Amino acid sequence: MKRNLGAVNCLYPMPITLVGATVNGKPNFLTVAHVGIMNHAQPTYISAGLGKMHYTNAGIKENRTFSVNIPSEDMVVETDFCGIVSGKQTDKSTLFELFAGELKTAPMITKCPVNIECRLYDIIDFPTHDVFIGEIVAAYCNEDVIRDGTVDLIKVKPMLFDMGRKSYWKLGEPFAQCWDVGKQLKTK
Amino acid sequence: MKRNLGAVNCLYPMPITLVGATVNGKPNFLTVAHVGIMNHAQPTYISAGLGKMHYTNAGIKENRTFSVNIPSEDMVVETDFCGIVSGKQTDKSTLFELFAGELKTAPMITKCPVNIECRLYDIIDFPTHDVFIGEIVAAYCNEDVIRDGTVDLIKVKPMLFDMGRKSYWKLGEPFAQCWDVGKQLKTK
Repeated sequence: MKRNLGAVNCLYPMPITLVGATVNGKPNFLTVAHVGIMNHAQPTYISAGLGKMHYTNAGIKENRTFSVNIPSEDMVVETDFCGIVSGKQTDKSTLFELFAGELKTAPMITKCPVNIECRLYDIIDFPTHDVFIGEIVAAYCNEDVIRDGTVDLIKVKPMLFDMGRKSYWKLGEPFAQCWDVGKQLKTK
Repeated sequence: MKRNLGAVNCLYPMPITLVGATVNGKPNFLTVAHVGIMNHAQPTYISAGLGKMHYTNAGIKENRTFSVNIPSEDMVVETDFCGIVSGKQTDKSTLFELFAGELKTAPMITKCPVNIECRLYDIIDFPTHDVFIGEIVAAYCNEDVIRDGTVDLIKVKPMLFDMGRKSYWKLGEPFAQCWDVGKQLKTK
């Protein structure tokens, strides 16, 4: 009934992001879905795992800042493009309208409805990957995705990634409340 | 046009998982959405960030093993329940039919279509959270969610979590191919 697939990562889908950094003095963006949330406290830490071959890594190490931008479905072409071409060969600094936050060296994409500005906290050094752990300094959102003071994912329309099918997925509908729908089992 | 929400985590949605461990000799499960993928290589490492108040943490530290189980939408009630009640007060070992993999002490839930068995690699020690980094030892899947040798998320029906609305979301449809749809910008 269960098939053992071997030591394969099946922790999908994960949200697609564009990780921004200043590399050799210019903004650069890389598509990254191998992200994570570390804790739920102040400060909050998130992670982004980047292969060591990428152009972006040196910029994050140099400035100790990076951004995590969440693109909408309608940005799928530009988002995918940033995962296909390297900043080594292609200048991605003019692909988007950008803005800076308080850290100055973490470029953020105006069109992305959600932008998270991070100060580098630590790097987990795997043989083939740098896992950048960032302390969240600020989150910026487009006014039109805010409802009741928080981000409304229905309006963000984030994309999700799955390595198995190499696909971008849409987010569906909310259908149950956390810390609530399970209460019915408490009475049993 | 951009609103600064402050140092708020907006890296959502994330996949909902049930983290399994053997605690005080018994299987226990905790609902965790603050997970992450560290790298894409062999071995592969994933992370699960658990508040230090949780019952599960001691079991992972003792046995140095844990599982990450991906529940389907139709398990939303049991999944939410595992995030509401603590193993300190409630025995969650009989809630699900379980199976063991090669590590023996990482209990896995048969009904969850995807199960990832991990050996503890490291712990990132934050003041309020233990971030458990696991090396993936094996992934197990129900036969009925496999298509062409890999996991089909259409059949898995994973749930996604969003802290802003405290909601469980459905996954939508795949709508574009990675490392493909962006190629059209290369010709410009």
